[in-house]
Amino acid sequence: MEKIINRQWVLTSRPHGAATKENFELREVPVAEPRDGEVLIKTIYLSVDPYMRGRMNAGHSYAEPAQTGEVMLGRAVGKIVQSNSEGFEKGDVVVCGNGWQTYAIAKAESLRKLDLPPELLPAALGVLGMPGLTAWYGLLEIGKPKSGETVVVSGAAGAVGSVVGQIAKIHGCRTVGIAGTDEKVRWLTEELGFDAGLNYRTSPDLGAGVAAACPDGVDVYFDNVGGEVSASVLRSLNTFGRIAVCGQISTYDLDTPEPTEAILPLLLTRRALARGFIVGDHAEHFAKALGELRGWVEGGRLKHRETIIDGIEHAPEAFLGLFRGDNIGKQLVRVAEV
Amino acid sequence: MEKIINRQWVLTSRPHGAATKENFELREVPVAEPRDGEVLIKTIYLSVDPYMRGRMNAGHSYAEPAQTGEVMLGRAVGKIVQSNSEGFEKGDVVVCGNGWQTYAIAKAESLRKLDLPPELLPAALGVLGMPGLTAWYGLLEIGKPKSGETVVVSGAAGAVGSVVGQIAKIHGCRTVGIAGTDEKVRWLTEELGFDAGLNYRTSPDLGAGVAAACPDGVDVYFDNVGGEVSASVLRSLNTFGRIAVCGQISTYDLDTPEPTEAILPLLLTRRALARGFIVGDHAEHFAKALGELRGWVEGGRLKHRETIIDGIEHAPEAFLGLFRGDNIGKQLVRVAEV
Repeated sequence: MEKIINRQWVLTSRPHGAATKENFELREVPVAEPRDGEVLIKTIYLSVDPYMRGRMNAGHSYAEPAQTGEVMLGRAVGKIVQSNSEGFEKGDVVVCGNGWQTYAIAKAESLRKLDLPPELLPAALGVLGMPGLTAWYGLLEIGKPKSGETVVVSGAAGAVGSVVGQIAKIHGCRTVGIAGTDEKVRWLTEELGFDAGLNYRTSPDLGAGVAAACPDGVDVYFDNVGGEVSASVLRSLNTFGRIAVCGQISTYDLDTPEPTEAILPLLLTRRALARGFIVGDHAEHFAKALGELRGWVEGGRLKHRETIIDGIEHAPEAFLGLFRGDNIGKQLVRVAEV
Repeated sequence: MEKIINRQWVLTSRPHGAATKENFELREVPVAEPRDGEVLIKTIYLSVDPYMRGRMNAGHSYAEPAQTGEVMLGRAVGKIVQSNSEGFEKGDVVVCGNGWQTYAIAKAESLRKLDLPPELLPAALGVLGMPGLTAWYGLLEIGKPKSGETVVVSGAAGAVGSVVGQIAKIHGCRTVGIAGTDEKVRWLTEELGFDAGLNYRTSPDLGAGVAAACPDGVDVYFDNVGGEVSASVLRSLNTFGRIAVCGQISTYDLDTPEPTEAILPLLLTRRALARGFIVGDHAEHFAKALGELRGWVEGGRLKHRETIIDGIEHAPEAFLGLFRGDNIGKQLVRVAEV
């Protein structure tokens, strides 16, 4: 086999405050041969996600910290180019953990074969992948919304939030999304069926906006953002309210999150629940959840959108854009044609 | 029947900041006659509890606000002096909602007859009453401690906290209590069997103290206090930690609780749960819980202590002392001899 060059983004330094392109370096290395039970996978689509910011820090996060000099980890859709495993053949398309690089060697047992048509492959990293599972688990297993209740989601136009709101609608809830541009808010209300949307950047008083959009209060808050946005929502939290803490993107660039309105007294007076989670801890739900998600997608009840940047060389840019809110729906990098 | 005079404490004004004696007035009124299905009850022991501070405010709390001019509500142990109900006889001893007064008329269905020996009657408002049930429910149903885990409780020498720590020990946990005097800390560790105690008033660095007392981190935090004490504990919270939010006494005198270290990011990175509760919502557990509590008390595994002030005229003083930490164990007012 001819020698294949692997282009890979490595973490070269840890950020202080916001991450920048200078924290990464594009390196070229030769690809090794897969051993017994391994396969060589060419990256097709690479997922960039806010949680990866945590990996760039040395400290406590739920994501394993990346070491400087190491390739940035991450999920991807890839195509097998060489197989030393009986279960896989050249040409198979899989979900894998290739990370920010054009090729990777993986153990067969870490892969999931995809039976999706080419146009749905990006969705395997979005609505039919971890973000969709995250929305499903956090909303249904922590939020436990009942028909007629009100669900508010922050980061509503993102990969997770956009699914949360639509599942809430499917479950008969009033659904309010908070996002950062008028274009996103229009997408939520005009295309995805959210009952109301709020632009946190232009709202003169987000707390009053939430209260007006939720005349019966907030029963479930699915939080991707934290900080002031969350404080504004929580003032309207109902008795027995539930808070699914999925992300805190407003805090990821801070050494220490800003002090906020105290939440424990609010949990007490509202007899409310808050729970942080990472969906990987709940794999026992995946089969059921994926089945439901796919059924809703195929039935036209669950829409999805991907923002795709072409070229591995633009991976850091795609990642950094998440923190500016550049993406609508799932942010991906297309590394190669299918 | 001769005319009986009822002495009752009414709320005359709402506090700004700390409550004072001047918010209450002792009034004398004649006692009415019980109607069909009602009984007249003489108050023996009156319970004063931190949650009553919430009743003094007009705003949102989990306790129904008292109106100015109204008698302060509260649970009590009383003796029936006149019965118009078939289920009760003169001389029966009951748990009732007499509130801060020497007599009250009640409907029979609101009462629970007590079969305790006289020396255990105070415990009916403590370890064998709402505080005990609160400790049981919050620790076992929210905290769900497993043998070998570490449980930290704030307000540990209070009516609820002292029971929490002992139940945690019965369940095989390392148990650390936080209290406000060295005498209380000694009581916890030398008499109740806590593994360690910390005096938050004298500790130079409570966070470091908690970390040292909890070498394996904190799995369950039972919070009666909030504010800086809780922030200090939560820095040591383990992955999959549970926070039972039972009280926030440090905040009750504040119009708005002080901003604190942001808790949502902590819940996220630790994949942790926090839930506020009030035990009255969970009556389906009471029979089982009371059975366990009584069995532990009678078996000598669960100790209890009451701080008792004599005389209805001292009810406000007993109540206000809770906020200074005057009490060890359950604070009661003895209004009459049994």
